[in-house]
Amino acid sequence: MNKQLILSKRPVGLPEKDTWTLEENEMPVAGEGQFVVKTAYISLDPAMRGWINDAKSYIPPVQIGEVMRSGSVGEIVDSKHADFKVGEFVSGWGGVQEYSLSDGTGWVKVDPKIAPLPLYIGTLGMPGMTAYFGLMRIGEPKEGETVVVSGAAGAVGSIVGQIAKIKGCRVVGIAGGADKCQYLIDELGFDGAIDYKNGDIREGLKKECPNGVDVYFDNVGGDILNTVLTRLNMKARIVICGAISQYNNTTEVKGPSNYLSLLVSRAKMEGMVVMDYAKDYRTAAMEMGGWLAEGKLKSKEHIEEGIENFHETFLKLFSGDKKGKLILKV
Amino acid sequence: MNKQLILSKRPVGLPEKDTWTLEENEMPVAGEGQFVVKTAYISLDPAMRGWINDAKSYIPPVQIGEVMRSGSVGEIVDSKHADFKVGEFVSGWGGVQEYSLSDGTGWVKVDPKIAPLPLYIGTLGMPGMTAYFGLMRIGEPKEGETVVVSGAAGAVGSIVGQIAKIKGCRVVGIAGGADKCQYLIDELGFDGAIDYKNGDIREGLKKECPNGVDVYFDNVGGDILNTVLTRLNMKARIVICGAISQYNNTTEVKGPSNYLSLLVSRAKMEGMVVMDYAKDYRTAAMEMGGWLAEGKLKSKEHIEEGIENFHETFLKLFSGDKKGKLILKV
Repeated sequence: MNKQLILSKRPVGLPEKDTWTLEENEMPVAGEGQFVVKTAYISLDPAMRGWINDAKSYIPPVQIGEVMRSGSVGEIVDSKHADFKVGEFVSGWGGVQEYSLSDGTGWVKVDPKIAPLPLYIGTLGMPGMTAYFGLMRIGEPKEGETVVVSGAAGAVGSIVGQIAKIKGCRVVGIAGGADKCQYLIDELGFDGAIDYKNGDIREGLKKECPNGVDVYFDNVGGDILNTVLTRLNMKARIVICGAISQYNNTTEVKGPSNYLSLLVSRAKMEGMVVMDYAKDYRTAAMEMGGWLAEGKLKSKEHIEEGIENFHETFLKLFSGDKKGKLILKV
Repeated sequence: MNKQLILSKRPVGLPEKDTWTLEENEMPVAGEGQFVVKTAYISLDPAMRGWINDAKSYIPPVQIGEVMRSGSVGEIVDSKHADFKVGEFVSGWGGVQEYSLSDGTGWVKVDPKIAPLPLYIGTLGMPGMTAYFGLMRIGEPKEGETVVVSGAAGAVGSIVGQIAKIKGCRVVGIAGGADKCQYLIDELGFDGAIDYKNGDIREGLKKECPNGVDVYFDNVGGDILNTVLTRLNMKARIVICGAISQYNNTTEVKGPSNYLSLLVSRAKMEGMVVMDYAKDYRTAAMEMGGWLAEGKLKSKEHIEEGIENFHETFLKLFSGDKKGKLILKV
């Protein structure tokens, strides 16, 4: 049988446990041109909260009764597909289930001999690509500039900061708690860290960014975005990658009331979605892999186990009770 | 004697009459390297509201006791400056006064035989330059795209729309009142107009922009900006030029709660200040002058008379009780 997590209702605010139902259904069987993947690891991402809203977005919402959408990595256990063989490892949109059926669309082969499987849904997967392209293509950091990133201890933020360091920038992370802030500086080599749970963000920015902010990579929105807007340098770039502080709102999203600083600073705020860069994933992954091998880039995964623990694990995205990439081992 | 309008207090909300005091002071006399301009026309701009706040911005605030800052155009009546002769006409930062003293910094010569003097503080001056560079350098409209502009019947908006038409775009203006909307279509050649005082802006955008919005030139902020954000096309560009709806707020500026549509649409929002383009003013003015001569560009001025009527005239910027460029004749 195949354990599948089915979306059973649309949550209001923070999803409760009955948002999903765990079902045991028939094992999928590969038809002509198809293959079956046995899920090894499931990716848990803040964006998943948006996918279960019934709203127009960059991707259609998951429908009630459908398997919860997620990235995953696993092994092919059945195949009638010419290009994907049994025993090969692949990464794609497997969803929160033990086995998934695919015609190959959106799946790529991965090699567990080159990197551990979880990395293919982390630093070498969507979060890593998001960090890479969001920073490099939208943020366009120049050597010597100051780069600030929020959600800095998370899957995307921690990579953004490390790439910005590789590119010769002063890097300041915003994260929740002294432990995470210490981690950013001691383990990831950030130049400064601001604990938004303890102390004033604006004062923190003044102290840690004495030359102002040139690039701000925003994963959180809300008050943090609004405060960074007051510290921009001329021609600053704000990358809008996400707004985790607003995803579980039951009231209107808090818009950045300081947005007119974009005018004062001749700055821009630009949104990005990682899928747009798919054709360049391979090149980026090779560069990132090189940095990993050289020890310039550190990848951290927080791995929990069991589909039945999906809900509790998912909530860690919003409580912040984790470091690095959140993953569910199946 | 020289009538001068002096900033006497910092207003909260919409400025009341006692924000300024009209004084009669000694006539200025040109010292070595200086000249005196007899003001002919004074420019009234929404930005002036920001200049009297005690806040860090792109320009220092006017101090209490100083002459109110404004653009102006006039004739040199006294000069000990090698490059500026008595009888020449000039445009610059004369301020709200009958006579101003200058060393030439920021002043340019203008020719009343080429264009009527008011045009040099309107379509061929700051508002025109703002429209030109904001649209062309930040908005970057392409032929066939849809350009939306708010404050569309104003000094900047009316020029933005007309330039976008010249560039082959579908142009939709947002303005207050049926009369202004009719004016945009009948006299300025806009393709569509939305009356924000009568009817739903979102419905108006759906109707007038059936192919979505590629460029939005924002002069107003507030609910209009927030609504346009819901109708963006992929890779749309929002030019943040001003936010007249928010300038007299006594509470916090209303931030655009729909800003995450920047992410969904991979769009950008970028601020601009016209002074940045000073080195290219002349080229732009020549191109604009050509369009004026060919009848492709229409310039409209709303001219009131008398420094003593400054306050009542200034309020028309916010009541919207005018069309085109608001000017005070001295």
